[in-house]
Amino acid sequence: MKSLKEQILESVRQDLVEIESALADNLKPYLPLVSHVAKYIMFSGGKRIRPLLMVLSARLCGYKGNYDKTLSVVFEYLHAATLLHDDLVDGADIRRGNPVAHSIWGNPATVLVGDFLLARSIAIAAQTHSVPIIDILANTTAQMSEGEIHQMLHRGDLAVEEADYMEVIRRKTAYLIQAACQVGALLAEAPGGQVQALADYGHHLGIAFQMADDLLDYTADTRVIGKTIGADLREGKLTLPVIYALDRATMEDRRRLETIIQDMVAVTEGRREEVPLSPNGQLLRDVDAKDADFETVLGLIKKYGGIAYTRERAQKHIELAKKCLNTFSTSKPRGLLEQLADYVLVRNV
Amino acid sequence: MKSLKEQILESVRQDLVEIESALADNLKPYLPLVSHVAKYIMFSGGKRIRPLLMVLSARLCGYKGNYDKTLSVVFEYLHAATLLHDDLVDGADIRRGNPVAHSIWGNPATVLVGDFLLARSIAIAAQTHSVPIIDILANTTAQMSEGEIHQMLHRGDLAVEEADYMEVIRRKTAYLIQAACQVGALLAEAPGGQVQALADYGHHLGIAFQMADDLLDYTADTRVIGKTIGADLREGKLTLPVIYALDRATMEDRRRLETIIQDMVAVTEGRREEVPLSPNGQLLRDVDAKDADFETVLGLIKKYGGIAYTRERAQKHIELAKKCLNTFSTSKPRGLLEQLADYVLVRNV
Repeated sequence: MKSLKEQILESVRQDLVEIESALADNLKPYLPLVSHVAKYIMFSGGKRIRPLLMVLSARLCGYKGNYDKTLSVVFEYLHAATLLHDDLVDGADIRRGNPVAHSIWGNPATVLVGDFLLARSIAIAAQTHSVPIIDILANTTAQMSEGEIHQMLHRGDLAVEEADYMEVIRRKTAYLIQAACQVGALLAEAPGGQVQALADYGHHLGIAFQMADDLLDYTADTRVIGKTIGADLREGKLTLPVIYALDRATMEDRRRLETIIQDMVAVTEGRREEVPLSPNGQLLRDVDAKDADFETVLGLIKKYGGIAYTRERAQKHIELAKKCLNTFSTSKPRGLLEQLADYVLVRNV
Repeated sequence: MKSLKEQILESVRQDLVEIESALADNLKPYLPLVSHVAKYIMFSGGKRIRPLLMVLSARLCGYKGNYDKTLSVVFEYLHAATLLHDDLVDGADIRRGNPVAHSIWGNPATVLVGDFLLARSIAIAAQTHSVPIIDILANTTAQMSEGEIHQMLHRGDLAVEEADYMEVIRRKTAYLIQAACQVGALLAEAPGGQVQALADYGHHLGIAFQMADDLLDYTADTRVIGKTIGADLREGKLTLPVIYALDRATMEDRRRLETIIQDMVAVTEGRREEVPLSPNGQLLRDVDAKDADFETVLGLIKKYGGIAYTRERAQKHIELAKKCLNTFSTSKPRGLLEQLADYVLVRNV
């Protein structure tokens, strides 16, 4: 029997081909460097989930025009822009198995190409001549930058709460996926109720998507996800599994968790500032030795049910997302949107 | 007798007060940090030339509404966003006498607050519900990022030509000033001829403005402009005065110029990468000793008429800008736009 992924891919193969062409055709940079950096980040294994959601949402609402693929690139460009800037902000090394863009082209080019992609996406959206669409995109972009700032401010903060986590993932992930679905409905000039239903679907899907992503950082195979397992924690990003465990741990276990996390973050901060040298020129901490520490953290997270709780919350949002689709009668695009929701939690990459 | 600056300031005092309020009122960040960084860059001596040009352009076209001040902040927010990102890209230390934002809040916050300002400005523009206005702003933002990338790619390039210089200043400076004037006319729903005339006025003014800025880098008093004289050259930015001199110099003088410039740029690049240490821990080059070298460069630029030529080109664009206003009958706003054009070349800061 075919896997859920194979089933979905078979149904959207032609859409994905057209989205890939549109991604390359609508960049229109005047400098080759922009093209190189943008293509490096965009054509290195992206799943095109955001453009696809826009296209399927428009189709669900009966869209028959030919602007859907072009408009859909906006969501991938915005996503790519934030990846460029966020990897820089996070001091990340690797994304999808490749060195991050700023390690190849340097910080200046990475900042500026990110700006170009932000601007280009709004310019493409403006071509719809639809004020609500433009408005959604501009506001989503502002929300995303504030979500990243919120996350940055809480880097390494052991007192961070589930409410902070929810605020961050809403802003940095859910709003863009919500916007993709909502804009699809608006492009199809769907009635208000349908626009809202798809916006809500996208919102819940986006939350589940980020929770699943955060789970992968604890449960995935490094070779499959193309980045080091535990990277979030090392970068000082406390996500729901560890927040939940910290909250429920005994005083003693909480102290153990805190000590290990503080050390892991300190090593990364040290690397980030390139001052981790002891007086005699040795790294103060041996980075490799930290794998054992990560295993300890993972064990404690599991002991207090942090993984199970996060999966449960994600499942809840998947159910809520699918429920939003009940306002539409059964159809092929509705079925696909339901399958995509289910796929979020079974994916391993 | 009052100076030109005093005359202009007297006429626009109330406008400037309202623009200042609008700048503070429309930021609407959800995080205090965004507010701190944005206000630091915006309320540290900006001249508000871009918002003012938009407001005066709208008034010249008979605008009577009350959205002009709000919309005008878009041009200052976009400008501030590019200052935040460009100072980071250029590795600058000081702006208007103050440490640059990224030296206080770090690169991550500076990148993200820049993104927020870009997004916020498009969101405010979207509130006009005018597709042409939104379109101009989105495209201008894309042009600006490409202008900065173009400049970055030519950093330290001694073969850079006047045509490259013009391309860079058109994109990084002229288009935004052009957009401010054009959007003012569009807000006033002016006829096409007037919109075009103001766009052209803004374009020429923008070019002259950047040329004047580049001249100040060679001629100003460090204490007045609030940054080190010769900073552009040290950052590897070859502007028109030096491009012109290099083109006209004898083989021998060209070699002298090239050697000194290469050394100056190498010192800055070294500082940028924090590796300018000799084996025994001394700076390989003494930065202070470079002042004499800068004087030599300045002497050679003057010898070949680079300063005079740049001033002449700027003057030419000022005249072209003012000529564009002939399509309007005499009025107070027209007189002010003419005065602002003249002021560009006499300002010393």
